[in-house]
Amino acid sequence: MDLESLNTPAAVIDVARMHRNIERMQQRMNALGVRFRPHVKTTKCEQVVRAQMDAGARGITVSTLKEAEQFFASGIRDIVYAVGMAPAKLAQALALRRQGCDLKIVADSVACAEAIAAFGRAHEEPFEVWIEIDVDGHRSGITPDDDALLAVAATLSNGGMHLGGVLAHAGSSYDYDTRDELMRIAEQERSRCVRAAERIRAAGLRCDVVSIGSTPTALAAEHLEGVTEVRAGVYVMFDLVMHNVGVNDTSEIALSVLTTVIGHQSEKGWAIVDAGWMAMSRDRGTQRQKRDFGYGLVCRENGEVLGEYLMSGANQEHGIVSRSGTPDHEIAKRFPIGTRLRVLPNHACATGAQHPAYQAIGPDGNVETWPRFYGW
Amino acid sequence: MDLESLNTPAAVIDVARMHRNIERMQQRMNALGVRFRPHVKTTKCEQVVRAQMDAGARGITVSTLKEAEQFFASGIRDIVYAVGMAPAKLAQALALRRQGCDLKIVADSVACAEAIAAFGRAHEEPFEVWIEIDVDGHRSGITPDDDALLAVAATLSNGGMHLGGVLAHAGSSYDYDTRDELMRIAEQERSRCVRAAERIRAAGLRCDVVSIGSTPTALAAEHLEGVTEVRAGVYVMFDLVMHNVGVNDTSEIALSVLTTVIGHQSEKGWAIVDAGWMAMSRDRGTQRQKRDFGYGLVCRENGEVLGEYLMSGANQEHGIVSRSGTPDHEIAKRFPIGTRLRVLPNHACATGAQHPAYQAIGPDGNVETWPRFYGW
Repeated sequence: MDLESLNTPAAVIDVARMHRNIERMQQRMNALGVRFRPHVKTTKCEQVVRAQMDAGARGITVSTLKEAEQFFASGIRDIVYAVGMAPAKLAQALALRRQGCDLKIVADSVACAEAIAAFGRAHEEPFEVWIEIDVDGHRSGITPDDDALLAVAATLSNGGMHLGGVLAHAGSSYDYDTRDELMRIAEQERSRCVRAAERIRAAGLRCDVVSIGSTPTALAAEHLEGVTEVRAGVYVMFDLVMHNVGVNDTSEIALSVLTTVIGHQSEKGWAIVDAGWMAMSRDRGTQRQKRDFGYGLVCRENGEVLGEYLMSGANQEHGIVSRSGTPDHEIAKRFPIGTRLRVLPNHACATGAQHPAYQAIGPDGNVETWPRFYGW
Repeated sequence: MDLESLNTPAAVIDVARMHRNIERMQQRMNALGVRFRPHVKTTKCEQVVRAQMDAGARGITVSTLKEAEQFFASGIRDIVYAVGMAPAKLAQALALRRQGCDLKIVADSVACAEAIAAFGRAHEEPFEVWIEIDVDGHRSGITPDDDALLAVAATLSNGGMHLGGVLAHAGSSYDYDTRDELMRIAEQERSRCVRAAERIRAAGLRCDVVSIGSTPTALAAEHLEGVTEVRAGVYVMFDLVMHNVGVNDTSEIALSVLTTVIGHQSEKGWAIVDAGWMAMSRDRGTQRQKRDFGYGLVCRENGEVLGEYLMSGANQEHGIVSRSGTPDHEIAKRFPIGTRLRVLPNHACATGAQHPAYQAIGPDGNVETWPRFYGW
């Protein structure tokens, strides 16, 4: 199978770019002296994750217990479920651990720690729990100097659970776009998470793991003193949001959506394509960044970026391709019906999730179908 | 199985509401004297579509050939594929017709009509083609007075294809929110599509079908003279975008996402839940409407709307629930860890698409799992 034989729309991976992205991150982590634990929520695809592991990753991060189940079934034992534990999901986590999965779970409150400890004791299972640290006010977690940090640590420890470490994610790093800002937020993520670990240790408790990460901070950090591992997800594909943040060129984006021109509105300068938001996702992550790419940046079928053409609008199965600035009234001649284009996505995690499989183009032009899963 | 036994996040259908929505639309279409052809892209779910057919629908509308294949396999013959035909998909359409599917396809340009006619003649298949009419500048189609209309009709007819009718969708109806505006755009959709059919007939060609529709215009039209059938999709569930347009109350929204509270940031007035954009979709369709509902409107597990609480932010598997206006610093007491909430979606088509199945709650409280499919 080759690119020409694919139906549209299709989610296409440029395998050579993907391997370069994996190598770039892994070599950086090796140089910084930390383990690397990719976040598999970006692709939920066995072939991609195998490439990450083969390059040197140590364990994986998941965003759902279904991801944990699927990747444990495919042979990965060392898994951290990086979303705060809902008590009702403890039975599912227990089942995984009983099957031999080295599953780590996360808590950021005394109430959650108590629920874990009560369930764990009732089932004689010393869950390994990492405490989530809030390093930037982005979402979840306990700030490093909050009294709750030691209360949660004590609840877990006294409750017979295995307090494994601390975990942070500087999600606000997506809001920056200069090298200096990214270096500053990376250092903030590092120093605050290390500070939390030190406070736990000063209280006489063990805290072996200090796990941090996001794609921008992982690529910007100058040193990672006190950190034991880094997590990142979207780096494996990169996308236009990350391009605006400043961590990748468009030529490094490994994911695109192949689409076909099905109509025109020449007066408006529109070409209509058969990829809408169902194929691109509704993610408009570049909307408030320095360049708004609409629903994506248009390329020729061979991948050559057509810098002025964007998917400027999208309905469920229709996309509108138009030129930025002045309308292209010759668009029906430029992209006649049947023309195939590729569209770079705003957000690789969201775009991938819309597709049952990736179509992976190797350096020889051969295409393999790589299934991905979804749901919970 | 009942609501309490469901894992979260889950896409929940209130079956009684769904049946009421189906009845409301079907009775309206019966009263207006037109056939009704629901758009199954909203749910891609056999049980939902069966309920629509049982209520009196005549045939279905699809947005992908995969939908056509799946619903033909489940026994529905009369199908219109309401997206402009890509020439490369003609072989797939031919295969469906050869199996006995009464598949109608759509064209809005001479180039497309020529491609259909050439393929059809080469395979001795007189494809039934409907010409797409642009009634509001929203997306695709030929305006009714454009010379291209008759050129396309002649290309199909002279090419040996079956010119079956005209089809329009006033997608811009979503931009309005008063009864007068909706009635005006409904009449515009009707009159312009009828005008196109009349021009084709005046040129001596047959044009049996006049197919129009969107949920807002279908519910606002005063009369449908000259129209033979109406298409609509989202009415079966309704959602917050349609609520802002003014066609449904929140108590009529049949789809919600069940979620669990997993943490808090009390200083900010946030509860963190285990439904993020992966469960809600990235659709922010209410962003520019009269009320911005963020990622959704929060209800108690029993469905009671908590009017002031929205999902104000979302990451992949984390949602932030907060009160509109002043932060609720007591939110950890109001919604303790483990609390289950339901979130009404902005856009039922987009939210449903994120889930492998619906959980359908019957009037007796019993829950059935209704699978849905995705992809192309």
